[in-house]
Amino acid sequence: MQEAEHGVTRYRVAVEFGDCDPAQIVFFPNFFRWADAASRHYFAAHGIPRWEEAERTHGIIGTPLVNASGRFLAPASYGDTLEIASRIVEWRNTSFVFEHCIRRDGQDIARIEEVRVCATRAPAGGKAIRAVPMPAQWRALLPG
Amino acid sequence: MQEAEHGVTRYRVAVEFGDCDPAQIVFFPNFFRWADAASRHYFAAHGIPRWEEAERTHGIIGTPLVNASGRFLAPASYGDTLEIASRIVEWRNTSFVFEHCIRRDGQDIARIEEVRVCATRAPAGGKAIRAVPMPAQWRALLPG
Amino acid sequence: MQEAEHGVTRYRVAVEFGDCDPAQIVFFPNFFRWADAASRHYFAAHGIPRWEEAERTHGIIGTPLVNASGRFLAPASYGDTLEIASRIVEWRNTSFVFEHCIRRDGQDIARIEEVRVCATRAPAGGKAIRAVPMPAQWRALLPG
Amino acid sequence: MQEAEHGVTRYRVAVEFGDCDPAQIVFFPNFFRWADAASRHYFAAHGIPRWEEAERTHGIIGTPLVNASGRFLAPASYGDTLEIASRIVEWRNTSFVFEHCIRRDGQDIARIEEVRVCATRAPAGGKAIRAVPMPAQWRALLPG
Repeated sequence: MQEAEHGVTRYRVAVEFGDCDPAQIVFFPNFFRWADAASRHYFAAHGIPRWEEAERTHGIIGTPLVNASGRFLAPASYGDTLEIASRIVEWRNTSFVFEHCIRRDGQDIARIEEVRVCATRAPAGGKAIRAVPMPAQWRALLPG
Repeated sequence: MQEAEHGVTRYRVAVEFGDCDPAQIVFFPNFFRWADAASRHYFAAHGIPRWEEAERTHGIIGTPLVNASGRFLAPASYGDTLEIASRIVEWRNTSFVFEHCIRRDGQDIARIEEVRVCATRAPAGGKAIRAVPMPAQWRALLPG
Repeated sequence: MQEAEHGVTRYRVAVEFGDCDPAQIVFFPNFFRWADAASRHYFAAHGIPRWEEAERTHGIIGTPLVNASGRFLAPASYGDTLEIASRIVEWRNTSFVFEHCIRRDGQDIARIEEVRVCATRAPAGGKAIRAVPMPAQWRALLPG
Repeated sequence: MQEAEHGVTRYRVAVEFGDCDPAQIVFFPNFFRWADAASRHYFAAHGIPRWEEAERTHGIIGTPLVNASGRFLAPASYGDTLEIASRIVEWRNTSFVFEHCIRRDGQDIARIEEVRVCATRAPAGGKAIRAVPMPAQWRALLPG
């Protein structure tokens, strides 16, 4: 499903009938869904543990999004196989930026940018979450 | 579900268990899904027909996205009711820009911007689509 | 969104463009998604707490499904408003059975049956879950 | 993604974070979504064309469901790889029955049964659809 090379992972998606809308093209929120999956595979490919384990060891429940944006360049439909090339292109204080290039047979289909933070549950134990720096131990596993 | 006032429509969403991820907050692509629904309700509230009818009368299959971006300001979870205030904030040559402000009890949860075009199937009859100007008859129904 | 009367709750769904597939009708897994939402509303309408609270007080993480089945009687599409009438029709030892009748303007669209259990995390603290009887305090809140 | 052997196709699914709910297990409607994808792959593996082409050549818009039922035997979560073994187990007059066995490393996770029909748009050209027998040319491509 994915491989890491020079800090880029490649994640493959089979576009299915149910991913498409009545215009017979991919319903666009699915591109964000696939980018989210590609981000997790990026972490997994670099040795970052599952969030369940991360919550036990570091109190980190995941990397929720602060911003997400997508440019949709050409339509895709069911039967297509997409390849998502993912990498972290920028490190900020508590956030970092993923770039996902989505292609079909070398043609650009979409480009997704995600700004994410590592999050911990805020003290109260309720629904609130709080951004925290990425643990140094994980940061050392990631290129850039 | 919606009302139009001064060119702003309000669309209400009940956040459900299945909309949330293992971090127990809304899985972010759902915000784009709800913004898409809010855009269609905006058109419906202003008298634009369903896309099936629009394809018959104007050859227009919908308003696919060129760009979409979201800022996620506070988490939401199941049991929450969100209100999405939607309006078109800019008209360009063939595209137009929707702004969706998503609030829960007056608190800002997310802000979504969508750049859309009216699309027709490209001549070949295949999967390709092509941006076309919005029909004048529809444009006249919309504020701004 | 819902009301309880004689142990039946009614949950309303606006079918959206993104809920439909290239055949321009509701992509059928969405009927199960809506039935799941209707089940949670049923519990909420009868005073059962959110699962987060239930996990703290009773160790119960939700009511996962053992079985689900649907009969699809007539297609629905975007623009339709569906009403889901939900009730528990049978109590078994550790499981119970929901029936959801989905109608549009009085016409039967689908009928969903769900067999659910109350679940707790299995001792090991891993992914495993275990069925447990419904707490008597909750059972007393529910009709039948 | 799939192979056909003795009339059984195997379709692989990577379970993603966004496929799981706050109980941290697969949100069950996704099992039906994956079964739907496995059914389409079954047809594709046996040479049945895409629905767009099928609508042009045979007026058939797809194989909507009459019934769907699932038994959920063990939970799955993100990071798991599932294999879906699919076959048609029964041919009736206008309907046919798919069985999908979903396994993880040889362990049974879920079993889905789908009763489907070939559908054509009903004369009026509206939303209505009508069940029709499967074209003999397709039936000849399928085992059983």
